[in-house]
Amino acid sequence: MRFDEATAVNSTEPPMRSEIHPGWDIAGNANGGYLLAIAGRAMATVADRAHPVSLTAHYLSPGRAGPVTVEASVVKAGRRLSTVTATMHSADKPLMQLLGSFGDLDQLEGPKRVDATPPALPAPEECPQVVHDPERGFPPPMMEKVELRLHPDDAQFLSGKPSGRPLIRGWLRLPDEEPMDAFGLLMATDALPPTIFNANLPVAWTPTVELTAHIRGLPEPGWLRCQFSTRFISGGMLEEDGEVWDSTGRLVAQSRQLALIPRG
Amino acid sequence: MRFDEATAVNSTEPPMRSEIHPGWDIAGNANGGYLLAIAGRAMATVADRAHPVSLTAHYLSPGRAGPVTVEASVVKAGRRLSTVTATMHSADKPLMQLLGSFGDLDQLEGPKRVDATPPALPAPEECPQVVHDPERGFPPPMMEKVELRLHPDDAQFLSGKPSGRPLIRGWLRLPDEEPMDAFGLLMATDALPPTIFNANLPVAWTPTVELTAHIRGLPEPGWLRCQFSTRFISGGMLEEDGEVWDSTGRLVAQSRQLALIPRG
Repeated sequence: MRFDEATAVNSTEPPMRSEIHPGWDIAGNANGGYLLAIAGRAMATVADRAHPVSLTAHYLSPGRAGPVTVEASVVKAGRRLSTVTATMHSADKPLMQLLGSFGDLDQLEGPKRVDATPPALPAPEECPQVVHDPERGFPPPMMEKVELRLHPDDAQFLSGKPSGRPLIRGWLRLPDEEPMDAFGLLMATDALPPTIFNANLPVAWTPTVELTAHIRGLPEPGWLRCQFSTRFISGGMLEEDGEVWDSTGRLVAQSRQLALIPRG
Repeated sequence: MRFDEATAVNSTEPPMRSEIHPGWDIAGNANGGYLLAIAGRAMATVADRAHPVSLTAHYLSPGRAGPVTVEASVVKAGRRLSTVTATMHSADKPLMQLLGSFGDLDQLEGPKRVDATPPALPAPEECPQVVHDPERGFPPPMMEKVELRLHPDDAQFLSGKPSGRPLIRGWLRLPDEEPMDAFGLLMATDALPPTIFNANLPVAWTPTVELTAHIRGLPEPGWLRCQFSTRFISGGMLEEDGEVWDSTGRLVAQSRQLALIPRG
């Protein structure tokens, strides 16, 4: 099943209905970026806008495969942007609370100045692919839904040797040349393994409290270059800063999430 | 009037009532960080939690001095965090839509690793203070409510010579030794002049679409060290990344805002 089908909105009138499809999970819980893409599509539909521009999600409960509803309301429909608030529910509980602004990225223009370069990565074929291991459950099932190739320096945690730097860089694309759209970028902002896996700390997982993604452009076809890094692990929390660049070397998404470090 | 009075919540039952006090404005419109502090206090009160941990605001309309209401609802009260959604209204229109998680920063702990240092600044007395100019209106009235001293390299835009780098660093504190609390930090994430003032581009102002602040710790008394920088000006938008450090050299807040570059 293609990504656009796996994140499709199944209604034209509120409440928007969608479905968490199996296989996008980590140990049974759907990936946060995948959920963000489902919610983002529903919110854009309600707003009648083409693209998310800035979207924030607070994660309330893990989502399992099955039907979901997205109750979305337009708070303000402005000239360039519409602001939308939403809740995603599964059958029995709220999964996410969301707030975003939606617009048309094709119509935005202005002066340009970029003081950054895409992450330096060896060619995709020189980067090890992260492949789902059905026996151990890790790498997770989601790795069958995307093609992820990690920078060799950042991939050694897979064999039990974290780099010691909370940094994960890699190439990402959808299988079968399915193009990445703005909703695919939402998914991309949470598709790589957590930076904590490379940090040499006794922390196995870091549940997301909140993730904000800015979609800064529509990607050209081809591999996305992704980089996620953490600078501040303190007070039981850490941030994860993401950059997603397209095949032409243009930044197309920026993200930051705040994650909790579970107690001992 | 002290900052805590200027951001006080005037009701104990919903809807929360507060007030935009005069003097916190730029050309009559209240500063976005000041509004965020008012809304954050109201949301924390409704959640019965001490501190904002992650708070996102989408700005809908400029706020003028006068009464406001903050309609806040707790979406989920968890063990460590409560998630709250809110709208701030003035008498005639919605000003901001908000979503945040609130908790008790004193009770969060865990492993520590920091891969960053506070911005290098000359001593406060060697940094020019930004002083309100009542005749020109710029620097704005808000500069009487805070004490802001800019890095000399970043302050030349005040005399018409932007540095050419979209970067603003400076010392910030409240007058009369009023301590900064977590809500003061919310204000601090939008208290410095916009980075665009140093960018040498024909852009005079950049209205905030969305601002997300992570409060990562409670500051010790004394000056805050602040840094705001922009790396991506493109597609009619720019991000502004903020770091706020306390007098002991600890990061206490991180922020990112997405701002629009108005057309021509």
